[in-house]
Amino acid sequence: MTEEFAAVVERVRERATPDADERERLRAATDRLVDRTEAAIDELPVDADVILVGSTARGTWLTGDRDIDLFVRFPADLDREDLEAYGLQVGWEVLPDGREEYAEHPYVVGEFEGFTVDLVPCYDVADATKIQSAVDRTPFHTAYLEARLDEDLAAEVRVCKAFLKGIGVYGSDLRTRGFSGYLTELLVLEYGGFRGLLEAAADWQPPVELDPEAHGEATFDDPLVVIDPTDPERNVAAVCAAENVARLQHYARDLLADPREHVFEPADPGPFSPADVRDAVADRGTTPVAVRFDAPDIVEDQLWPQLRKSLDGLTGELDRRGFDVFRAEAFAEGSAVLFAELAVAERPAVERHAGPPVGVRDHATGFYEKYAAADGVYGPFVDGDRYVVERDREFTTARAFLDSDALFDVALGAHVESALEDGYDLLVGDEVATLAAEFGTALATYFSPRP
Amino acid sequence: MTEEFAAVVERVRERATPDADERERLRAATDRLVDRTEAAIDELPVDADVILVGSTARGTWLTGDRDIDLFVRFPADLDREDLEAYGLQVGWEVLPDGREEYAEHPYVVGEFEGFTVDLVPCYDVADATKIQSAVDRTPFHTAYLEARLDEDLAAEVRVCKAFLKGIGVYGSDLRTRGFSGYLTELLVLEYGGFRGLLEAAADWQPPVELDPEAHGEATFDDPLVVIDPTDPERNVAAVCAAENVARLQHYARDLLADPREHVFEPADPGPFSPADVRDAVADRGTTPVAVRFDAPDIVEDQLWPQLRKSLDGLTGELDRRGFDVFRAEAFAEGSAVLFAELAVAERPAVERHAGPPVGVRDHATGFYEKYAAADGVYGPFVDGDRYVVERDREFTTARAFLDSDALFDVALGAHVESALEDGYDLLVGDEVATLAAEFGTALATYFSPRP
Repeated sequence: MTEEFAAVVERVRERATPDADERERLRAATDRLVDRTEAAIDELPVDADVILVGSTARGTWLTGDRDIDLFVRFPADLDREDLEAYGLQVGWEVLPDGREEYAEHPYVVGEFEGFTVDLVPCYDVADATKIQSAVDRTPFHTAYLEARLDEDLAAEVRVCKAFLKGIGVYGSDLRTRGFSGYLTELLVLEYGGFRGLLEAAADWQPPVELDPEAHGEATFDDPLVVIDPTDPERNVAAVCAAENVARLQHYARDLLADPREHVFEPADPGPFSPADVRDAVADRGTTPVAVRFDAPDIVEDQLWPQLRKSLDGLTGELDRRGFDVFRAEAFAEGSAVLFAELAVAERPAVERHAGPPVGVRDHATGFYEKYAAADGVYGPFVDGDRYVVERDREFTTARAFLDSDALFDVALGAHVESALEDGYDLLVGDEVATLAAEFGTALATYFSPRP
Repeated sequence: MTEEFAAVVERVRERATPDADERERLRAATDRLVDRTEAAIDELPVDADVILVGSTARGTWLTGDRDIDLFVRFPADLDREDLEAYGLQVGWEVLPDGREEYAEHPYVVGEFEGFTVDLVPCYDVADATKIQSAVDRTPFHTAYLEARLDEDLAAEVRVCKAFLKGIGVYGSDLRTRGFSGYLTELLVLEYGGFRGLLEAAADWQPPVELDPEAHGEATFDDPLVVIDPTDPERNVAAVCAAENVARLQHYARDLLADPREHVFEPADPGPFSPADVRDAVADRGTTPVAVRFDAPDIVEDQLWPQLRKSLDGLTGELDRRGFDVFRAEAFAEGSAVLFAELAVAERPAVERHAGPPVGVRDHATGFYEKYAAADGVYGPFVDGDRYVVERDREFTTARAFLDSDALFDVALGAHVESALEDGYDLLVGDEVATLAAEFGTALATYFSPRP
């Protein structure tokens, strides 16, 4: 088994490691970029230096990755406004055909000799606990890892990244909520390699807390806690969802028990056709409902938290109204979908409404008098110590609810709410099959769930 | 308002109070019964005396009541076997055409000059805390009340009994779980009359504790606690259900606010026809289900706790299986019925089954391997920190469940279980309309619920 595992890892390692030619091209491009950037800095009225950060700096990028991250580091006492202005000036000088993006500050992204270059301004602070913006931390991460990752460990990191990509948990973006590059590198370092990490993760009993520098100063409520070696108050794994920790554990056991390369390849179930969707729904006997709308024009890291919040709000209200949600998920490509599969899509005409205990005289009398005079109400009668009535239910079908203004009473993300106000399509039952045109792969994954 | 109330009470009081002729007939019959009983006692090898107990002893019986309770009191050191033998010997001697019944001991019930006579043996104990069987307490109750109920209070007790009968809460039998005669008398005594009781009850905030002799020695978990004046460890209202306390409160307020005689008459909604049942079901949009069987041949005080236990077991299991019970009730006349109205009568083909947290390695691996190899299962996948599968549901309709052996896995009363094993009719939806032939009144009450 150990030999088999080693052989699989060796093959993945070979594929993931850039060859000499790729390394040389990257090195040459980086050198030219640094020269250009330093020339641009010389024109500024302040001092600054340029540093290479990220996986290309640490030698942990995967074959074919095309990202170069350059940070321009300004004095810590520079005005934020000036930092942004100078940062953009350098960016446009180096990457005249680039575009502006926005994280903590605006910065310029552009193509250079076939690579995608991020040119980001940051402050030169004394240590990572003194940062003025989140990006100021990055140079410290790079310095920490550069000092500790040798050629062999860098190759182990590459294997690990390929594995995390293969099982769908790589990336700290808010759609994925998985493992960042920095987190991956820290974990490989902590356990001395890919296999060490797998063996440890297979036995984790979350919450798991790692503190490489033994300097943690805060407590966290996350399933995986990795105290930042450069900042005792930060959990590097804060964004990592419980699902993704569990997935790492599952596939770690899986790969150790049965080493094979295809685990390192992202699963591709092949898109569902409308007929596939109808077959799955018929087999399950559920009632799917979908609210489809134009995805609001915001970045993914804004969109996904809003989609999740909206889905939670919607499924919570469906449950409260008696339409039992069996499973639910948000999809987003060009349009966005709140998708929920219902176990119950119809309710009786009546609903039970419990009043106050009869012993609470004022409330009880008010309740009794209100409903005794009401039309179409069964009761009031006494159940246990309370008055109860059976009154008309507001919505007897999930369709009627989703088609009504009551949809807007649930907690929705702000941009999702605006988008829904502009209009949405409501699909119920087999009607959701039409989603296959745009979301065939997402539906295939939904109806063929794997860890 | 006070005058109106007084006028209503006065009319009820007149109707409920036996006239001189009725009293004289009762007195004469009682005298002859006591003579006969004493003669029968003379033939026994032990000493005993006879005492009149119950409402006829206390002068609180309602016009038309035809019950005389005579107790034969034996020495406290008599063997239980001898007490039972002598008790029956006296009983048969006095009531040769009677029949044997059983409470704590066997005893004889028979007709005598138009009255129904219970002739019950008991022990002559020093005080009510020394009783050897529950019936030994009764003479103490009678003595306590005889010393305190004058003619006027006795008439107030009669009005109160008529009221409690009218609102359906009179009787400590286990079908009614309401107010016993003794409890009614204590409450009228405590509050100085019928009106005093109503005004107090209207303001009760259960749990309510009364202790006329201020000697209570135990705590009780009941909504109404009335410490027995003859036994500091006993709650006279122990059998009184929360519903019935609440009903007394409701109708107390109702009668005080709007005094009228018809509250003193039991409600008679008029039986539902099969068409009425179908109309009610259509109006409510629910799915009623009924399990009808031959009522087991046991006394009502055994039957009703078993019916309630069986109904609880059945509705609990229906709920667990996703068939939401909207309201339920047991009926019993010649046959018995467990009746439940469902808000959901059909479920999808699949059910969600959550496994252990992925971090609990042994259990998690066992769960994963079991279901990964199973046919027709969606998953295992990861949700939160757990494995989850969606597997075939055992019963997708309430009918299929109720028609299966799984019905016998719920907690049923022992005699109900035996009766069901002998066979039962299962009625679903409009089929329950056929119950109207035997249970038309019960169904009318069910579908026109009032406090």
